[in-house]
Amino acid sequence: MSFFEATRLLAATLGAGQVRTDEASRFSASFDNTRLSFMPDAVVLPQNEADIAATLRLANAHGVPVTVRGAGSGSAGASAPLRGGWVLHLAHWTRIEINAPASMAIVQPGAITAAVDAAAAAHGLFYPPDPSSVKYCSIGGNIATNAGGLRAAKYGVCRDYVLGLEGFLPTGEFVRWGGPVRKYVSGYNIKDLWIGSEGTLGVITKAILKLVPRPQARHTFLLAFDCDEAALDAATTLLAGHSTPSVLEFLDTQTVTCAERKNGFPVFPPEALGSSATVTPSVLLVEVDGHPAVVAEETARVREWAAKCARAFLDTDDAVGAEKLWNVRRTCSQAMFQLGNAKLNEDIVVPLEGYVPLIRFTREIKARTGLATPTFGHAADGNFHIHIMYNRDDPAQCRQAEEGILLMMKKVVELGGAITGEHGIGITKSPFLRLQHTEAEVAAMLAIKHALDPNGILAPGQIFEVTNVWEHRPVQVTLPWDKH
Amino acid sequence: MSFFEATRLLAATLGAGQVRTDEASRFSASFDNTRLSFMPDAVVLPQNEADIAATLRLANAHGVPVTVRGAGSGSAGASAPLRGGWVLHLAHWTRIEINAPASMAIVQPGAITAAVDAAAAAHGLFYPPDPSSVKYCSIGGNIATNAGGLRAAKYGVCRDYVLGLEGFLPTGEFVRWGGPVRKYVSGYNIKDLWIGSEGTLGVITKAILKLVPRPQARHTFLLAFDCDEAALDAATTLLAGHSTPSVLEFLDTQTVTCAERKNGFPVFPPEALGSSATVTPSVLLVEVDGHPAVVAEETARVREWAAKCARAFLDTDDAVGAEKLWNVRRTCSQAMFQLGNAKLNEDIVVPLEGYVPLIRFTREIKARTGLATPTFGHAADGNFHIHIMYNRDDPAQCRQAEEGILLMMKKVVELGGAITGEHGIGITKSPFLRLQHTEAEVAAMLAIKHALDPNGILAPGQIFEVTNVWEHRPVQVTLPWDKH
Repeated sequence: MSFFEATRLLAATLGAGQVRTDEASRFSASFDNTRLSFMPDAVVLPQNEADIAATLRLANAHGVPVTVRGAGSGSAGASAPLRGGWVLHLAHWTRIEINAPASMAIVQPGAITAAVDAAAAAHGLFYPPDPSSVKYCSIGGNIATNAGGLRAAKYGVCRDYVLGLEGFLPTGEFVRWGGPVRKYVSGYNIKDLWIGSEGTLGVITKAILKLVPRPQARHTFLLAFDCDEAALDAATTLLAGHSTPSVLEFLDTQTVTCAERKNGFPVFPPEALGSSATVTPSVLLVEVDGHPAVVAEETARVREWAAKCARAFLDTDDAVGAEKLWNVRRTCSQAMFQLGNAKLNEDIVVPLEGYVPLIRFTREIKARTGLATPTFGHAADGNFHIHIMYNRDDPAQCRQAEEGILLMMKKVVELGGAITGEHGIGITKSPFLRLQHTEAEVAAMLAIKHALDPNGILAPGQIFEVTNVWEHRPVQVTLPWDKH
Repeated sequence: MSFFEATRLLAATLGAGQVRTDEASRFSASFDNTRLSFMPDAVVLPQNEADIAATLRLANAHGVPVTVRGAGSGSAGASAPLRGGWVLHLAHWTRIEINAPASMAIVQPGAITAAVDAAAAAHGLFYPPDPSSVKYCSIGGNIATNAGGLRAAKYGVCRDYVLGLEGFLPTGEFVRWGGPVRKYVSGYNIKDLWIGSEGTLGVITKAILKLVPRPQARHTFLLAFDCDEAALDAATTLLAGHSTPSVLEFLDTQTVTCAERKNGFPVFPPEALGSSATVTPSVLLVEVDGHPAVVAEETARVREWAAKCARAFLDTDDAVGAEKLWNVRRTCSQAMFQLGNAKLNEDIVVPLEGYVPLIRFTREIKARTGLATPTFGHAADGNFHIHIMYNRDDPAQCRQAEEGILLMMKKVVELGGAITGEHGIGITKSPFLRLQHTEAEVAAMLAIKHALDPNGILAPGQIFEVTNVWEHRPVQVTLPWDKH
């Protein structure tokens, strides 16, 4: 049976309104934040669990690929329907319920991450994982990529908050892994196998999340350093002293230059930087949070460290003032487009010892390729966003970017790091998977995939099959999060 | 080829000294803390990774079961070689290395959990998971069962501290999952699948553990309540107020009675309990820890709560005084043997709403079976240790205990809980696995087992095959941890 006929059968089963085959519906579900578009045959809008079960049953019977989609803000192409078929759209599954006495949230996968935290906040509770896309991304995708964000070194990543998952095996059976409890060691932990599996091992319909008390106070610092190495050395010193800042963002001088140009004013007033005023600084943004007494003590400690290490620093415990210090971090990502109309945005991770070698290597790539390599990221956990800026209309620059990113990934693995810390492999990092993992490791992963999805219907082609993204021109669209 | 011939081949490969076939070696590796003995054909003492690879290769070639063993202090029989074959003994793999700047420990599986924490403490760092057997259990077994302990509600369980694992697939290939980084989302998360899989999916040879700053202060409370329900209601109130005590241990009146009889003096002086002095109290042991200012604030809060809820309470910030308050908790487990020469010790978990229904049900079981059901446990995460005390020489009592525990497990599942929070399924809980999980869930787990261990050589029979433990009389031995 062709996909076309299978789709007609699905529409007859679910009702035509829930199975969209018009061009606009299919196009808008064909890509994520990477803009790599792969057209599905239909977009399925399930109204309940039975609809999902029926969809998966038909998909298995007729070999139709199924790709699960939430907000579609992913950065690795994992929600793009690479092999066509059906997009199982769960963006409208947005229910959030808070069990305040138990400090838990029970959420549907389409719930926006910031909405989960806002619902928790109404009870004095906190859902800490905060990918930069927190206002747009949905929690199902956060779980599918084990999303991290800025506060992960202190508060952990998405995985650390998922107590239970409900949903469907690729073969269509309803299952529950874990539950509304904080200890659980019955049978295999398929919950944590699902987390980070990028929609290839199951369909999540509900998650039970752990919440924690909301921090009562915070203090924010912005520090200027003469060079990237000085900033990273300082970050390392702070961490080695067993400080646990909630935020420790690093911005290299290339990144700061972009932000300053875009904003039209320097991050630090020149007089504050003294003799090195002519050099754009590298920057650290530091935040400590928690109990006021702890914040006061940590603030004193950070101030002492800043006075010793930094060229200059600013700090505040005031929310408005803090927002000013955050400005450079918030604007830097979009500001980079001065340097090229396209960017590779990688989310690699390196151990503490690798920070300085990594930043040196980004400049080596810059020197070798002639392309800018602005880098910022989460220095508290070594999760740096390395960018290579290029002109997508210039084939030579595309080739150089492609070569540069391969060298970078090799370096990351050589430094004992991870090629992805929070975006996932999806499509875009599929060429690098085998740099990270041995043949035996990939074979074990594929054996699990085949065991749980014998017909290979769930997100086929993702993660394990190498897709040459350079053959796919990104579509030109403006997405809700582009202004940020 | 028979196991006997395969063992000769293994001895020829590894050297006879590393393959023990004498009765004493085999017997001592035949059981864990459950005392259910299953004799292996040989005990293998690998000196290095190559020895493990060779053992697994031969095991696969000749279909010999391999059961991994560390300290052997498990409480579910998971390290008992149920189908004979080879015990891969790793108790001598005890290396511990601390990377203090990165706040990580790199450990071999035989390292004793308390030794890992002691090594961390030398750098002001902390490895929080603390099963009661912390002084005896090895970290490999902690990972294999995702060990929890008393501090889990505040600090998390073993899983929350494992950043990376190294070891072997059942088929003998060396693999690494995760690494010395705090974010990692490359490929499937087989690390967390291994954690809690009770030695059935791989052989762990190295773990990279996250460490956290050591708490600087603590304050300890012991509270008396008129009845079990009052104690559990009070615990619920404390948690619902979003307090995060590091310890919140509950002891029901049956348990306190045992401890008082064994010690020869009451937990609370009768005059402190006032009008209810003739009734044995139910007890909560509460500890708050962390920054001194936070501890001071939490202490005030707990005191106010205690004054409102408890019949009487004692508290101290002094280490010697705290040890006195801990006495009832430390002695209660052994004290129970007044009530029978054998006990079932289950480590079930229930959600907050299930605390009171659960404790009522333990008394219902007591009334129905005539057997004592002393219960204590970690009220902060709902992980209660329910015991059924019986006389192992009395077949009628054995039958009643067996019936009672089945009813208990059904109740736990009905309350939305987990049949095991920290011990694992192993052999002893295999009769209850299918109460917790549907057929589809178990089938998914088994599909993963077959995918990674196609010859079924690693710990065959564990978890998934139902073993009737009542057919196996425990051996009479004294183990190092028995006096505790």
